[in-house]
Amino acid sequence: MSLKNDLFLRTANGELTERPPVWLMRQAGRILPQYRKIRSSLNGFKDLLMHPELAAEVTIQPVDELGVDAAIIFSDILVIPEAMGLHYNMVEKRGPLFPKTITSKADIEKLDFGNSAADKLEYVFEALDFTVKNLDKRVPLIGFSGAPWTLFAYMIEGSGSKTFSKAKKFLYQEPEASHLLLEKITETIIAYLKLKIRHGVDLVQIFDSWAGILSPDQYKEFGLPYIAQICSAIRRVPITVFAKGAWFALDQIGELDCQVVGLDWNTYPSVAREVLGDKRVVQGNADPCLLYSNPENIREQTIKMIKEFGHHHIVNLGHGVYPDTPLDNVKAFVQTVKEFSYKV
Amino acid sequence: MSLKNDLFLRTANGELTERPPVWLMRQAGRILPQYRKIRSSLNGFKDLLMHPELAAEVTIQPVDELGVDAAIIFSDILVIPEAMGLHYNMVEKRGPLFPKTITSKADIEKLDFGNSAADKLEYVFEALDFTVKNLDKRVPLIGFSGAPWTLFAYMIEGSGSKTFSKAKKFLYQEPEASHLLLEKITETIIAYLKLKIRHGVDLVQIFDSWAGILSPDQYKEFGLPYIAQICSAIRRVPITVFAKGAWFALDQIGELDCQVVGLDWNTYPSVAREVLGDKRVVQGNADPCLLYSNPENIREQTIKMIKEFGHHHIVNLGHGVYPDTPLDNVKAFVQTVKEFSYKV
Repeated sequence: MSLKNDLFLRTANGELTERPPVWLMRQAGRILPQYRKIRSSLNGFKDLLMHPELAAEVTIQPVDELGVDAAIIFSDILVIPEAMGLHYNMVEKRGPLFPKTITSKADIEKLDFGNSAADKLEYVFEALDFTVKNLDKRVPLIGFSGAPWTLFAYMIEGSGSKTFSKAKKFLYQEPEASHLLLEKITETIIAYLKLKIRHGVDLVQIFDSWAGILSPDQYKEFGLPYIAQICSAIRRVPITVFAKGAWFALDQIGELDCQVVGLDWNTYPSVAREVLGDKRVVQGNADPCLLYSNPENIREQTIKMIKEFGHHHIVNLGHGVYPDTPLDNVKAFVQTVKEFSYKV
Repeated sequence: MSLKNDLFLRTANGELTERPPVWLMRQAGRILPQYRKIRSSLNGFKDLLMHPELAAEVTIQPVDELGVDAAIIFSDILVIPEAMGLHYNMVEKRGPLFPKTITSKADIEKLDFGNSAADKLEYVFEALDFTVKNLDKRVPLIGFSGAPWTLFAYMIEGSGSKTFSKAKKFLYQEPEASHLLLEKITETIIAYLKLKIRHGVDLVQIFDSWAGILSPDQYKEFGLPYIAQICSAIRRVPITVFAKGAWFALDQIGELDCQVVGLDWNTYPSVAREVLGDKRVVQGNADPCLLYSNPENIREQTIKMIKEFGHHHIVNLGHGVYPDTPLDNVKAFVQTVKEFSYKV
């Protein structure tokens, strides 16, 4: 059976479409009352991850409630470090916290990786199975992973950080061990994404959330080559690479063998088009805070953005939607895109 | 009496020099054992700010210990919000915290501003007087201020933040009140910097630490025009504008009526030169984490950077030096620059 709404996939694959598709990073989450209801019945964020049937339910909620053109599986980028042997806790209002971190080559050698690690993420694959069944081909389903550098950053740093100076210090002081860890993470990501594809995702997105914290030289050495490896290994579905803050490497990201380039809200559409060309499919990049504004302004700014990017554009925010965003404003954003036509 | 070492000022004023000058953002601080000794005898960071004689002492320490080509007054960007009526606490390991924040136009109307607010910062001017006396014209003295947007961000948000979404929300929801607050902050900054100049600073630097959190359109509306006002009002000493993360506005920053453009570590020297031209004086931009590396690598990378920028360059990091940076590595960085000659 084919998809009822395949606009997102057609656009990702480079086709000319009648309008741009729209979805929001973090759409499955705290902006929806029906999400908060499920969440409050459980013991925190990770508990929800581990309940595949409920994870599938919150994955589908934004398709019902917002009418977006794609669903993204409710999950977390840190399931991979955990599968490799580094347990973490999600601390309310603080974010992830790893009681044990990587401090040496010996720690890296002890990690599980590749298929053996990815196989442990059965609860994610079950959530995908439930989602595929209940989504019933209404819209495409996106699978995702953190990028190697971003997962590396958490595994060394042990938590979020303004500077990730511990992780960067490790790159400077232990370049060889760093590459070893990045290789193991990359192998795990590839195995994990292949399993996700086998369980029905239609596109995979790589989130390099902390790309912008590296110097251009470090990103060239420790970031991009591992994303390139993933792009080479994943052939059956399109790939989106979203490297937040990596404006300095946008030309190199443009050369990756991926189908879609994600853009953060700092990037002027005209600048992105100048670097990437008019035919590269891009995704983004409204300021998430625009959705604090009002429907009229949201409509105006969104149409301006769509016109500036032109064809080959998937509408999204330039970052995940913030938890306290008014739902009516999110709906105004989605509705604006759905009413737009390139032809007019 | 003229300066014994005026290399920094000659470079800032556009002269061709024998080598680039060097100093480090946050050089007066936790990397120095003599700083930690003074600090431990007091009741926290703000207590040190309020002891002008000690603030002067820690200002001069890096000149003695590191041999840098400029001193920067030990102070804090948040003294201005405080002088305007918003008290803050500096919480160990967490950063600044404002018990009361700005939530409405009425709050803004109650704020003190301009000369009346700046006059309250007597302890800063006393610290400058002590510094001028004890520095004894060995090197130039830098005064500084936060940029209007960055101070605005703290006054609304009440603390540091990964997204500053409260502050950005205020910009979207209350544009008129936002401009009123930015005007009041700007007037205060101008009054404050003029007083600093009267108390002997040789150059002023504007830190727009959170520039990179704004969308390009918002920065154009709420960030740059107020920095431009400051540049117009300050005529007696050179000005450095350091807008961290504002790569998207680098061309517009280059057009400001300031003498030096500060660059963060994400900006390739070749990109900066392409946008700003070879004659614009720039400051920066080694990755602060490079100083976790080793003296040999620091030397190599620093020389590479100096050669890439060419003349009209003040060597610095692309961000403040991190507290746990090994002192010997900081010295290797400074020494490398001091041994360099453009002539070879």
